[in-house]
Amino acid sequence: MTGACDFERIFNPKSVVIVGVSSKPGFGFGRGMFNALMAMGFAGSIYPVSPKGGEIDGLKIYETVEEIPGEVDFAVISIAARHVPEALEACRKKGAAGAEILSAGFSETETPEGTALEEEVKRIAGKGIRVIGPNCFGIYCPESGLTLIPGPDLSREPGPVAFLSQSGGMSVDFAHIGKWMGVRFSKVVSFGNGADLRESELLNYLLDDPDTGVITMYVEGVENGRDFFSALRRTAERKPVIVYKGGLSDSGGRAVASHTASMGGSGVIWRSALRQCNAVQVGGIMEMAQTSLAFSLLPHKIYKGVSVMGGGGALGVNACDVAESLGLEIPRLKEEIEARIISILPRPGSSAGNPIDVANPFVSAQILKEVLLLAAGDEKIDLQIMIQLLYHYKSLAGGIGADSIRDVSPHHELAQGVQEVVDTTGKPVIVVLPNLKQEIDSMDVEEVMREARKAFLDRGIPVFDDISDALKAVNRVSDYCRKKHGTPLRKAAS
Amino acid sequence: MTGACDFERIFNPKSVVIVGVSSKPGFGFGRGMFNALMAMGFAGSIYPVSPKGGEIDGLKIYETVEEIPGEVDFAVISIAARHVPEALEACRKKGAAGAEILSAGFSETETPEGTALEEEVKRIAGKGIRVIGPNCFGIYCPESGLTLIPGPDLSREPGPVAFLSQSGGMSVDFAHIGKWMGVRFSKVVSFGNGADLRESELLNYLLDDPDTGVITMYVEGVENGRDFFSALRRTAERKPVIVYKGGLSDSGGRAVASHTASMGGSGVIWRSALRQCNAVQVGGIMEMAQTSLAFSLLPHKIYKGVSVMGGGGALGVNACDVAESLGLEIPRLKEEIEARIISILPRPGSSAGNPIDVANPFVSAQILKEVLLLAAGDEKIDLQIMIQLLYHYKSLAGGIGADSIRDVSPHHELAQGVQEVVDTTGKPVIVVLPNLKQEIDSMDVEEVMREARKAFLDRGIPVFDDISDALKAVNRVSDYCRKKHGTPLRKAAS
Repeated sequence: MTGACDFERIFNPKSVVIVGVSSKPGFGFGRGMFNALMAMGFAGSIYPVSPKGGEIDGLKIYETVEEIPGEVDFAVISIAARHVPEALEACRKKGAAGAEILSAGFSETETPEGTALEEEVKRIAGKGIRVIGPNCFGIYCPESGLTLIPGPDLSREPGPVAFLSQSGGMSVDFAHIGKWMGVRFSKVVSFGNGADLRESELLNYLLDDPDTGVITMYVEGVENGRDFFSALRRTAERKPVIVYKGGLSDSGGRAVASHTASMGGSGVIWRSALRQCNAVQVGGIMEMAQTSLAFSLLPHKIYKGVSVMGGGGALGVNACDVAESLGLEIPRLKEEIEARIISILPRPGSSAGNPIDVANPFVSAQILKEVLLLAAGDEKIDLQIMIQLLYHYKSLAGGIGADSIRDVSPHHELAQGVQEVVDTTGKPVIVVLPNLKQEIDSMDVEEVMREARKAFLDRGIPVFDDISDALKAVNRVSDYCRKKHGTPLRKAAS
Repeated sequence: MTGACDFERIFNPKSVVIVGVSSKPGFGFGRGMFNALMAMGFAGSIYPVSPKGGEIDGLKIYETVEEIPGEVDFAVISIAARHVPEALEACRKKGAAGAEILSAGFSETETPEGTALEEEVKRIAGKGIRVIGPNCFGIYCPESGLTLIPGPDLSREPGPVAFLSQSGGMSVDFAHIGKWMGVRFSKVVSFGNGADLRESELLNYLLDDPDTGVITMYVEGVENGRDFFSALRRTAERKPVIVYKGGLSDSGGRAVASHTASMGGSGVIWRSALRQCNAVQVGGIMEMAQTSLAFSLLPHKIYKGVSVMGGGGALGVNACDVAESLGLEIPRLKEEIEARIISILPRPGSSAGNPIDVANPFVSAQILKEVLLLAAGDEKIDLQIMIQLLYHYKSLAGGIGADSIRDVSPHHELAQGVQEVVDTTGKPVIVVLPNLKQEIDSMDVEEVMREARKAFLDRGIPVFDDISDALKAVNRVSDYCRKKHGTPLRKAAS
């Protein structure tokens, strides 16, 4: 199954044909993909095709693939399953390097007709055109502007994370989450039933892809376990591979069968095989996104000692409990550092033992920055976490007669300050920004939260909603690096 | 320590004195509390006190407690710690039933002065005035309009959940979360250092409080373990008690010492004691809120079989994996029910085996309602979950030329439909509404999500952001009821 593949023409095509674009507005996937590529600003040529012809946005709709005048690098096929083989063959003859088949109605239906159609697709793929799908949402490549369906508004900013997904819904959901959470993608491939191109071959490609530094996968089942785990092990030796395996339970296994026609496989075997390959196993889409974010933005090294700073004692207590359960430490700071920190914090109500309780959420950005600088001076500290409950600034604004939370929220100074701390100390800082005030009449808080997240992300500082998610993500990075370098678990940073 | 206490005058005071209200605007807690009580619409008399006198919002500021003309039910004390005993004694002489001391600077400082001041407070409390605090955020009672600091905008809608918290930050954070998540409170008590009124006595009161159906607690340490666990066991036999114990780790234990002057205690002992009392143990604020929501809105019974309906196969796979890991089941539906469901769903791409994949996020509210009605007809199903990715309606709006997501989002029909399903079938439905699209230019999506949440909550239907949180919360309810009625774990619903 590892044939030649011109990935460059597939991910960065100069021209795309879309088979199945109706001239009438509606919900059709082909029409949706046409709109989405236009909205994304895809720079190459787009050739819409439909037997009824017509026009769309001033572009001619070709009645057949054959009559397209120019060359075609890549095809999107979105027509009823029974017509797919013919269209695929036409694209192959036209010289396309690859095609994504968005249509469903193949092996996942578990019917003889569906299975036969998929066999036919495989046969044509074997003659040279590489196939993504069927039953998939396609390819998203921020660099070129290719996008998933329905993805008219995904980010065009490229980044280090590649995502391979058997599930279309998961691919588009993760692409959307990544946009605001700060996960930037090199390429995302939703390969659905995976009749041709799928996990192992794509992993082998990504291993050498210079644009990809982190690989994330949603897997329901694999075609060939031996090939997959061998590709996975080899890849994880060079780049972190985050794997979300869906369908580890009995009913989950049944669900994957009807979803992507995969065999789920036993949970015990999967977990053990993933561990042996040093893959980073996650159990849900948010955890997958948070882990991808941490691997994108944190230096890949072993973290042991963490400082936690926030306004509110219970937050610090929680951080300690979670950290310790993961094997991370929140060590007490050196006495002289503790004394210097306490001397600049408001009294009473503060404490500086680590966790550092700054007593209230209104401590200035300047003081918070100084505390971070001081705490970083303790060699036991590898990474710092700042928890900020920005929502309290809404009551503050009311109390001091300011017009809105935006007038008083210090997120820009905070972001600036944290960046200076990271630059000065060389120790990463993670920011935790929970929004605990989400009622309808607090949209102003939400707006400030989003601006704050962006201000930190623009400086390469990861933001999490929750301290426990942040600590888990740090621990994933640490664990991966520890295993990669063969360091025993407990003696890591000593 | 279990003296007489006129809780009625404390939670529903006709008059409140606030000691420490500056006539100048600023950040002082006393001034903040004055503003907050006004903003909450507290209906009783408010008497501000400050040695400097003056006026605030047209009200006279009294120079001493003694000169207040009327009777005083309850006092808020927010002045420097060293002046607190004198003010407390004045309030006692004035006949107040209770006082909350917001000031910090007592035993939590671990200094001889702080400890002596707290002893003095205890001594005065022993003479009849009951004390909440010191080092606390006070009492929130939606019924009367008492509020926490800083809480000018908490909900006035009362409900079944009482919350007892050693941490002030935790109390105000949970009160804010409850407002939008749909947790409604009977009373919230932040008791800080707990010099007088604290966990055991408050539990005993809540056991018989007719307004309280669910009790939630944030505990760092208890005064008397034997009293506490005996009160807890007795209470949990009648009402669910959700306990979030902070400081179970070594460093967490150190953090609680400087936070509320508590001894943390060993994690193993706590977990085992809580289990023996059939308390519902949670490990973070969001989990605490979600569990409180489930106990507020779901019938207290054993749940085993769950149906899951959503547009997107991977969501269903994930639901199965999580459900099974908890001991819940997502059983395959009866053949004839499955056939009837599949006949009304779009093809291809859908499946009805449970999880029910409705193929895309745009299936109409009418059809979703019919699917829920059909699935409820299977006696294996005790509870239903509907996952709805409303964010996709933003691209839909763009695709069909609608002005905004609000024009096309079906959340009102969905809420109406789900309510009819619950009324008809008697089986609860939980709605999962993840917002995966949180970038700055999608505030429109957030607005619709919040309206949608409210539309469901207004009908008593719980909403979660995440399927796995929803399943965990259901399982908590189920587990509590199973243990309460002594049913063995695995044979529950058979």
